[in-house]
Amino acid sequence: MSDATERTRWWGWGGEEGRPRLSPAGAALVTRELGLDEREAPLPPELESVALAEPSLPGEAARRLEAGLAPGGLRTDRLARVARAGGKSYPDLVRLRAGQAPAAPDAVLRPSSPEEVATIVEVCSELGVAVVPFGGGTSVVGGVTPRRDGFEAAVSLDLGGLSKAVEVDRRSLTARVGPGTLGAAAEAELGAHGLTLGHFPQSYELATVGGYVATRSAGQASTGYGRIEDRVLGLRCETPSGRLTVNPVPASAAGPSLRELVVGSEGILGVITDLTLAVEPAPEVRHYEGWSFRSFAEGVEAFRDLVQAGAAPDVARLSDEEETRLSKGLAATGSAADRAGHAYLRLRGHADGALAILGWEGESRVAARRRSRAARMLGAAGALALGEGPGRSWARNRYAAPYLRDELMDMGALVDTLETATSWSGLLGLHAAVSAAVRTALAARGAKPVVGCHVSHLYESGASLYFTMLARAERGHEIEQWSAAKRAAGEAIVAHGATITHHHAVGSDHRPWMEAEVGVLGLEVLHAAKARLDPNGVMNPGKVLPGQGEARAGLAQEVSP
Amino acid sequence: MSDATERTRWWGWGGEEGRPRLSPAGAALVTRELGLDEREAPLPPELESVALAEPSLPGEAARRLEAGLAPGGLRTDRLARVARAGGKSYPDLVRLRAGQAPAAPDAVLRPSSPEEVATIVEVCSELGVAVVPFGGGTSVVGGVTPRRDGFEAAVSLDLGGLSKAVEVDRRSLTARVGPGTLGAAAEAELGAHGLTLGHFPQSYELATVGGYVATRSAGQASTGYGRIEDRVLGLRCETPSGRLTVNPVPASAAGPSLRELVVGSEGILGVITDLTLAVEPAPEVRHYEGWSFRSFAEGVEAFRDLVQAGAAPDVARLSDEEETRLSKGLAATGSAADRAGHAYLRLRGHADGALAILGWEGESRVAARRRSRAARMLGAAGALALGEGPGRSWARNRYAAPYLRDELMDMGALVDTLETATSWSGLLGLHAAVSAAVRTALAARGAKPVVGCHVSHLYESGASLYFTMLARAERGHEIEQWSAAKRAAGEAIVAHGATITHHHAVGSDHRPWMEAEVGVLGLEVLHAAKARLDPNGVMNPGKVLPGQGEARAGLAQEVSP
Repeated sequence: MSDATERTRWWGWGGEEGRPRLSPAGAALVTRELGLDEREAPLPPELESVALAEPSLPGEAARRLEAGLAPGGLRTDRLARVARAGGKSYPDLVRLRAGQAPAAPDAVLRPSSPEEVATIVEVCSELGVAVVPFGGGTSVVGGVTPRRDGFEAAVSLDLGGLSKAVEVDRRSLTARVGPGTLGAAAEAELGAHGLTLGHFPQSYELATVGGYVATRSAGQASTGYGRIEDRVLGLRCETPSGRLTVNPVPASAAGPSLRELVVGSEGILGVITDLTLAVEPAPEVRHYEGWSFRSFAEGVEAFRDLVQAGAAPDVARLSDEEETRLSKGLAATGSAADRAGHAYLRLRGHADGALAILGWEGESRVAARRRSRAARMLGAAGALALGEGPGRSWARNRYAAPYLRDELMDMGALVDTLETATSWSGLLGLHAAVSAAVRTALAARGAKPVVGCHVSHLYESGASLYFTMLARAERGHEIEQWSAAKRAAGEAIVAHGATITHHHAVGSDHRPWMEAEVGVLGLEVLHAAKARLDPNGVMNPGKVLPGQGEARAGLAQEVSP
Repeated sequence: MSDATERTRWWGWGGEEGRPRLSPAGAALVTRELGLDEREAPLPPELESVALAEPSLPGEAARRLEAGLAPGGLRTDRLARVARAGGKSYPDLVRLRAGQAPAAPDAVLRPSSPEEVATIVEVCSELGVAVVPFGGGTSVVGGVTPRRDGFEAAVSLDLGGLSKAVEVDRRSLTARVGPGTLGAAAEAELGAHGLTLGHFPQSYELATVGGYVATRSAGQASTGYGRIEDRVLGLRCETPSGRLTVNPVPASAAGPSLRELVVGSEGILGVITDLTLAVEPAPEVRHYEGWSFRSFAEGVEAFRDLVQAGAAPDVARLSDEEETRLSKGLAATGSAADRAGHAYLRLRGHADGALAILGWEGESRVAARRRSRAARMLGAAGALALGEGPGRSWARNRYAAPYLRDELMDMGALVDTLETATSWSGLLGLHAAVSAAVRTALAARGAKPVVGCHVSHLYESGASLYFTMLARAERGHEIEQWSAAKRAAGEAIVAHGATITHHHAVGSDHRPWMEAEVGVLGLEVLHAAKARLDPNGVMNPGKVLPGQGEARAGLAQEVSP
């Protein structure tokens, strides 16, 4: 089987060729700020030395699953299992780098049709084998890390085989896409039709379209193109109780939305096998530019004004002062142009300001008109136009962060991101609270943390906040250290009535806060829906929903299993 | 209790003052086209002569419900019961006009707080009394017509008391609204803050905001402002199992959407008691204008081009040739201007064309720019600008149709509307199929039907079709006649993969097609969610979902109970 997942680092992000790297100055800056010691850097792990339990898939299950799949569709080899032992969360990577794969599936199944998926979920439900749907494997919240939860065995169901050619209805601007299609591959196919899905999460190069939908994803251009759920018209989902079908229609008033029950279900109800998505004409232009604000607070106000006036860009990102400082430091070349730029900002009172990236896409005349309207508003708000330079730099590095995380981990750093969303009225309070909570939690354990944040994904009623935390890792206690910071952030988020996740999804890591998010009765309703579709509970156990009766306090102690 | 519902016709639409009326020429046209005989016109019914069963609310239920409500909160008088014996569907009105109120509730409850609602649903669940939530009572699909479905008694739960002042968060453009607030009243309150909800269904004057949400409503300006579900950020819902709360956040990736389970649930899960909605700055301008296309098909293409280029108006409505012909006839004054207009259209090859109304709202400069961009595109597509005259006329009459229905029924006509939505690729085929199905079904029973249609609610992937059917009513057999037409339309709709309802909701009347809409397993999941929230099944029984195991064929025989 051709396998995108296995061509990338099983213990990190992406392939080995052409990886983005920190500049020497950037690496020095991080080393200095976090107090790292390069001598601590570990070597990358060897596949052969990963501790791996013997596969324990019962013989009957193995026989029936093999019979239901094309030859080679069931694998138990070391690479297949280790590459699906986790997603790409910080704890996932910490464990794999330490040569531990306690969650590795007992087998990896790769169906090539919806019918084979149906067979897999039926057999596994009957025999009590946990099924973990696996797209690109890029979950940063433990969403694809197998959990047995009482089952004897777990299989990873790799959807890479469900990636047939995209079927386009040009008149209706819709496309039927296999869930295992990589986002980048779907985009390439759509591009040949002059179309785009407009969905560009940071995981774009490695994630699948089915993964987008299963995790209720948003991307860097979602201020303009909308979230993935805004693009899902129809779908099919194979569950242990049979196939759930949502007919693709532009809109309907026919009762509660089953589509919105499957979107975001992260494999706990079934496996998405077919998607009909709304697509857009590919943009004639993509214009990204930098703006500077005197402060994060001023930038937030300006972003609010833009989106509420219907003048928002398609890509909108505003770094707080700390993230701005860090990103300038990482990008610094020491050139004359660099120094002149800094001098200019200092002169205008923006020396410690907040950097924004705005992106305009679409028909060139329309994009230009939108851009100049926004520029007038931003200028009136005291923002400084920095031109296309910062925009080009952002675009060049838009998918780089997870590659750099590998390098930072090599250097001995804890590095993670988390995100939330709230109303404009609550945004600055939430920003202050989460930043302080994470800093305090890390400092309390002796680290010198750096916590930056940016606003992105603008809505008329509010926006998301995306936090990045960096600190010197506590060697041998990385996960406890991370858990302390994650718990502090989660508690601050729910205390402010914000959502525990704006686009990373729930997985394992956000389960402790699902009760705060949807309430006890809300959880019970979701359990009821799951019980009807997955009566034996084999679908991605231990994800999204706390177990019935499982106490929140208990869960918080095991933020990542 | 102050009661909006009881100030309007219990057997028809709206109040008695200032009702829109057909012109004499319009009435003559309809009489001629349908072959009506004015001598058949019945007198309006007398409240005292309506056949009404004795209220059968068990004593314990009555005592406990009265104890849980403010004084006067439980009524059993004739007006209260008859005014909530049905909504405003054609069969509802036929029955009431005939002095029949077989479904009238045994009591009308009017809680004044969410806590009182909680008490009602708890007591009724415990004692087995059906609860029918009632907002403005404007359902045209049997959504508020009580059904006992095996319960001894049914109460109508009037939400008019849950209409406290709108709380506005101006920074976040959100408003917290009581579900019993009339749409028009909410709009007036928001207007005082310079805001709008942008939601203008034809029932706008009489419907409630909670009803909008419970029925997944769309309005005349929803092409611009979006459907009601696009505006729901948070809500509370009192169910027999307790309160379900959806925190208001701009967006979230925290699992399946419970919000989208409650939206469109039409009271079968519980009672919405609190809403936080996204609102908009009130528009500086509202500019409505007429355009003519040589044919409906050409107009559909032009509308598709507009919406797919991001150039759609906020109000978009395109009548087919038959609806255009009828509406010109109804509006004809025989004036010189009228005749000149017709001569102009004839000269340009538009004599038998299709009339469109386009509406532009918002900041005046932005609206003007959008309007001129669209005008260029429409001109290039061969459309003729008819100026603001037709737009003013449409705006004046935008809520008139249900008043005129009363008059048409007085004249002996069957009159009903139904709506669906499908992709652009499927739109003309669906239009032809449904038009033909309804005409054939009515003609087969001997009527000379008129069936018109308009496109409205544009999406990039498709649009809705809204059909109006008129025929001479079969006196004494009105409901059989109507059922035949309704069944024919429903079958044509599902055969084309379209949705059974784009914005009228399901109620009783669309249940026969819910299996085609969401599948057997989809129905089972919805039943599972309902069973968890409403274990005794008292919440609006017989609505939305066919009974478990209830055969579709059987249901189709009783389109309206």
